[in-house]
Amino acid sequence: MSPIRKSAPLSNFGEFQLIQSLPRQFSTQGFHPTVGTGDDAAVFPPSPSKQVVLSTDLLVEDIHFSHKTSTFYDIGYKAAASNLSDIAAMGATPTAIFIAIALPPSLTYENWQEFYRGLARPCKDHKVQLLGGDTSSSPTSLFIAITITGEVHPQHILTRQGAKSGHLIYVSGTLGDSAAGLAYLKKYKRPPELYKISKRMKYIVERHLHPTARITLGQLIASQPYASAAMDLSDGLSGDLNHLCRQSQVGALIYSERIPISQHMNKYATQIGADPLHWGLHGGEDYELLFTVPPKWQSELEEIAKKRRMRMTQIGIIQPKRFGIRIEQSHGKQEKLVPSGYDHFIE
Amino acid sequence: MSPIRKSAPLSNFGEFQLIQSLPRQFSTQGFHPTVGTGDDAAVFPPSPSKQVVLSTDLLVEDIHFSHKTSTFYDIGYKAAASNLSDIAAMGATPTAIFIAIALPPSLTYENWQEFYRGLARPCKDHKVQLLGGDTSSSPTSLFIAITITGEVHPQHILTRQGAKSGHLIYVSGTLGDSAAGLAYLKKYKRPPELYKISKRMKYIVERHLHPTARITLGQLIASQPYASAAMDLSDGLSGDLNHLCRQSQVGALIYSERIPISQHMNKYATQIGADPLHWGLHGGEDYELLFTVPPKWQSELEEIAKKRRMRMTQIGIIQPKRFGIRIEQSHGKQEKLVPSGYDHFIE
Repeated sequence: MSPIRKSAPLSNFGEFQLIQSLPRQFSTQGFHPTVGTGDDAAVFPPSPSKQVVLSTDLLVEDIHFSHKTSTFYDIGYKAAASNLSDIAAMGATPTAIFIAIALPPSLTYENWQEFYRGLARPCKDHKVQLLGGDTSSSPTSLFIAITITGEVHPQHILTRQGAKSGHLIYVSGTLGDSAAGLAYLKKYKRPPELYKISKRMKYIVERHLHPTARITLGQLIASQPYASAAMDLSDGLSGDLNHLCRQSQVGALIYSERIPISQHMNKYATQIGADPLHWGLHGGEDYELLFTVPPKWQSELEEIAKKRRMRMTQIGIIQPKRFGIRIEQSHGKQEKLVPSGYDHFIE
Repeated sequence: MSPIRKSAPLSNFGEFQLIQSLPRQFSTQGFHPTVGTGDDAAVFPPSPSKQVVLSTDLLVEDIHFSHKTSTFYDIGYKAAASNLSDIAAMGATPTAIFIAIALPPSLTYENWQEFYRGLARPCKDHKVQLLGGDTSSSPTSLFIAITITGEVHPQHILTRQGAKSGHLIYVSGTLGDSAAGLAYLKKYKRPPELYKISKRMKYIVERHLHPTARITLGQLIASQPYASAAMDLSDGLSGDLNHLCRQSQVGALIYSERIPISQHMNKYATQIGADPLHWGLHGGEDYELLFTVPPKWQSELEEIAKKRRMRMTQIGIIQPKRFGIRIEQSHGKQEKLVPSGYDHFIE
């Protein structure tokens, strides 16, 4: 085979040749498939006494990402991280991913390699293997569909359905960083090298482009079980809290003063005259966990989390369904919390 | 909620409302998920002593289907059938599907319903449940990614790798019908009601639009195991035989006179001056099974297949790798069989 020119358009290559050339960064540890890539389907044995977890996500050019604000590496990275986050939200351990990708003719061989390099990065941290997929040309935009599998002990499954009145509402990490990072990227475009921008900007931009799936935290809160319900924050707190409350048939009260906001995000908001609380409440794609905890577990869980340096903040209390979903402002006034999450069809 | 107007564009609806309105045609039998749709991921228990089978397929508008030759029902039907066919090729039993779909703004609520009605049809026959997915808008084309899961006993897994020199090469059903059906549809467009066209045309058109996944045959040939290797025919015999031989590191000799051609396809080819053997060798999307059988199982397998009215034809013999892949014409001359299968990047 002749050497591959990196700027060559993908149309120069056959599907088989492309698949063969995939980067070797993916893990081959920790999980033993019976049949891997290259057959009609993958086959893998479930671990003893575990159940199978499966989630599918769709990423569409100019809907979920833009080449103006992300490189191909970033697109791959976030695709993997957002899918890992779905596994984290179930309290499960990720095992394998499968990529269906439709590639517009403008893409080069290098773009393709960069996408897979980004994808492999967070997968490697969790020993997640690439086990299959499908590759096609696209007459128009870039489309990516990712399927991720995981496994979980049946007694450790975290769903959105178990929250009860009186349970405490928690979020991990800080909220709104990703929205702030996107605001920065929309203004200045994605710099080719992130280390060249200031530490503050780098923090919020990284949080947008390379989010961290809270796998270990998900496993911790599922293990006792400390958490009665959980989900990951992809559409923003206001929208996602709404989903969780609907599934659990409950209401919620949250306190605006308790929403965890990072210093970097807060300063950037001040700098450009934006409202940090608005980003914290409504900004999407933080991929932090939202979960509810029965009060009897509060001190034990908070102690363990502190020891392991996992940031989590109690932001409110689950209420009866008729209460609705409200936010209490710092001056004590309660208002209805209206979701302004991202819905691909309505906005 | 106000009544839904079927011609309304999908942009009038929220994602949640759309998902809620999915047709109820999907099975809820035969398989017991622990967590179904509506959470961050689906969770299901594997059957005792079974392994998990998983395949992902991509369908892109104007690459894999066209609205000129298929209705939304047809697109959904074939999406399900082609994925079921991957499970058949592994000798497995299908369990659940997951749909990631990006919808262009021109689509109506009725289009969406029709797609899912088509998708549900072959799924129902095999008690396959819809367990999740992702729905997004698309700025351009319709894009569908389907993930299907199944299960199989580890001793019954059919791969592409076990064919050995001397094994007999079989195909199920007849070949080239789908290519003939597509030729008809390209010429006359898809008639709104298929029963209005002649029986012959209806046969080839149905074979193209609504193919049958050979689930039961896959399970039969995997059960003894009668078959040493298997795959489904999606790219056409010439291309797919090439894939199988590459994976098994063998060559093959097939006989042109033995390629099973249906009477309907043969007559249509004659009528329009096309070569039925060309369609039989190179036409894609028949979703029949291609498999190899050690000679000692030949008579037993053929007898069972005859009893169960499963059509299968021995079309050739596996050869050593150095032999290459050749076809023997009716006059006895052997030629190299050059794949002209569908590769999305090169044609």
